[in-house]
Amino acid sequence: MKLAIDMMGGDFAPREIAEGVNLALAADETLRVICFGQEEVIAPLLTPSDRIEIVNCKTYLAMGEEDPFGKIRTDSELSLSQAFLAVRDKRAAGLVTAGPTQGVVIAAHLKLRRLPGLKRLALCPTLPAIGGKERLMLDVGANTEMRPEFMLQHALFAVNYAKHVLKVAEPQLGLINIGTEAGKGRELENAVYALLAADPRINFAGNIEPKEMFASSCDIYLTDGFSGNLVMKTMEGTAKTMGAELKAAIKSRLSAKIGYLFMRGALRDFKAKFNPDNVGGAILFGVDGVVIKAHGASKARAFAQAISLAHKACAAGFIEKVKEDLTR
Amino acid sequence: MKLAIDMMGGDFAPREIAEGVNLALAADETLRVICFGQEEVIAPLLTPSDRIEIVNCKTYLAMGEEDPFGKIRTDSELSLSQAFLAVRDKRAAGLVTAGPTQGVVIAAHLKLRRLPGLKRLALCPTLPAIGGKERLMLDVGANTEMRPEFMLQHALFAVNYAKHVLKVAEPQLGLINIGTEAGKGRELENAVYALLAADPRINFAGNIEPKEMFASSCDIYLTDGFSGNLVMKTMEGTAKTMGAELKAAIKSRLSAKIGYLFMRGALRDFKAKFNPDNVGGAILFGVDGVVIKAHGASKARAFAQAISLAHKACAAGFIEKVKEDLTR
Repeated sequence: MKLAIDMMGGDFAPREIAEGVNLALAADETLRVICFGQEEVIAPLLTPSDRIEIVNCKTYLAMGEEDPFGKIRTDSELSLSQAFLAVRDKRAAGLVTAGPTQGVVIAAHLKLRRLPGLKRLALCPTLPAIGGKERLMLDVGANTEMRPEFMLQHALFAVNYAKHVLKVAEPQLGLINIGTEAGKGRELENAVYALLAADPRINFAGNIEPKEMFASSCDIYLTDGFSGNLVMKTMEGTAKTMGAELKAAIKSRLSAKIGYLFMRGALRDFKAKFNPDNVGGAILFGVDGVVIKAHGASKARAFAQAISLAHKACAAGFIEKVKEDLTR
Repeated sequence: MKLAIDMMGGDFAPREIAEGVNLALAADETLRVICFGQEEVIAPLLTPSDRIEIVNCKTYLAMGEEDPFGKIRTDSELSLSQAFLAVRDKRAAGLVTAGPTQGVVIAAHLKLRRLPGLKRLALCPTLPAIGGKERLMLDVGANTEMRPEFMLQHALFAVNYAKHVLKVAEPQLGLINIGTEAGKGRELENAVYALLAADPRINFAGNIEPKEMFASSCDIYLTDGFSGNLVMKTMEGTAKTMGAELKAAIKSRLSAKIGYLFMRGALRDFKAKFNPDNVGGAILFGVDGVVIKAHGASKARAFAQAISLAHKACAAGFIEKVKEDLTR
C-alpha cells in the first residue's frame, strides 16, 4: 500500500514537505510513498529509501494561484493533478497535500470518482484537542449552499471516520446551532435535526452552540460549509489575537517580563495547543479515495502527522466502510 | 431627558443593576432615570436622588423563562414591558436592560413602534476593543433568515450609530464572508455585496474573513443573524477555552507558578479585554427608540457603561438621524 504525496503544495514546499516525508518513513516501516514534484528539486531533499518512488512533474499549483480551476483543467502536468490520478488509477491508496484548499477540492472533483450517490465534497478537520478530546468538524468550506440530505451523508462519513480511523467507540455527533433547544436555527438546521434524530446509525447529541465547542462531550460537529468556515476562521482570529494581546500585556510591565522568564515553558505549551500546525490535517469527503489536506502552513512535523493519518485511514479500509454505510 | 431602566433583568439583578444605576448617576449629573421593578426590593439598593423615579412592577421576566413570548403577551406587569411602554409613550427617551436577549427582542417587537419601512430587528454589539479600535457587528441573533435589503438597512443604521454616537468620522463597513474576493459566499452575500458597493452613503471595505476581524481597519461588520450569532459564540468559546488552558499550563509547572506571581497584573489586563462585562452593551435596531441590551452577566460597572451608551445615543438624537437616512 502506497500513498501519493504532492511535494510542491504548501507555504513551505518542497523543503518542509520532504522533511515530513522523511520523518513519516522513519516512524513507520510499513509506509511506502510516491512523491510527485520537480525531481531535481525534491530528490536531494529526501533521505534515500527503497520505499520512495519519485514521479517527475514539470509544473505545480502555486499557493496564490488566482484561477485554480483553469490551471487544473488545462495543465495536466501539475504535481497535484498527477498525485490525484495515481489514486484514481489505484497506483496509490491515498493522497496527502498541503496545497491550496480550493485547488485541492477542484482537483478532487475533476480527477477522482465520487462515492456512490454523492454530489457534494466536504472538508473535515480536527479541532485543537482540549480536555484530551479530538473533535471533528464538517463541512468547513467546500459547500456554501447545502441540502439536508447532503448533511446526513456528511454525518455518516464522519461517524465512520471517527469509529474506524480515530478508534472512538460510540462517536457522539452535535449539530452546530445558535441555541441548544430543538427548533432553533434556520429551516436547514431544523430539517437536518429531524434527519439525525431519526437515524439509528447516529448517536445524536442535539444542537450545540459554538461557545460549548471545546467543552461538550461530542466527537463530531456537523454544519454547512459556509457556517463551518466562519466558525473555523473566527477561532483562528480569536486565538491569534489573544496570543498577541497576551504578549503585549507581558511586555507592558517589568514585573511581567521577569515572570515571563519563569513561565516560558508553560506559555509555549499553551501556544502549541492552538497552533494549526499541530493538527494532522483535514480529510476530504465525497471522493472514492483517502485525501488528506494538510494546513497550508504545515512544517515537517505537521505534514508527517497528515501522512500518518492517511496511512491509518487506508489501513482501516475506511473508504470501503463508508461506501457500505452509504448504500445501506 | 430620562432613561427607563429594567431593574430586574440580568443574572445579578437587582443588586448589580442598582449599583450600576448609582454609578451612572454619580458619573453624569445630566442623567435622570425611571427604575422599573419591585419597589420594596430595589428602593433600598438605590442611593437616594431626586433624579431617580421608581415605578413599582409586581412581576419580572426570569432569565431562564422558557416561554418569553407567552409571558410577555399575557403579563403586562413585567418590569421589562413597563419599561418599554415608557419609551413608547415618550416618558423615557431610551431603555437599558440586562434581561434575556430573546425576551428583549420580543418585548421590543410587541411594545414599541417600528422605524418606518422596517420589518426586522437586529442586535448590534461592540466587539472587544483590540488595537484601540471599537468595532460593531450586526446582526448577531435576532434574525435567522435574512433578505439583502434588510441587511442594507442594518448597514445604514450602523453607519449612523458609529458616526453620531461613537463619533467615528468616516466609518468603514466590511461584509463578513468566507473569502475576501468579490463573488465569495452564498447568494445572500453576493446580493448584499452589490447593494453595499453601489450605495454612496456607505464606505464599503468589501468582504472580511472572521480571522481578520480584530486586525482590519473596519468599524462595522455586517452579517446575517445566524452567522453573526455563530461568530460571537465561537469567539466566546475560544476565549474562554484559551483562558482555561493558559491557567492549566501555568498550574502544571512550579517555575510557571513563580512566574505567575510576577505576571498577575499583566494577565488580569489580558483577561479584562476579552471579558464581555467590559463591553457597554448591544444596541437594538429597528424600533422607534434607543434600546441598549447589556450582557446578561453584567455587573455594576458594565451596566453603568450600558446606561452611558444609551444616554449618549439619546443626546445625539440618533434615532431621528437614522429615520432621515432610511426615508431618504
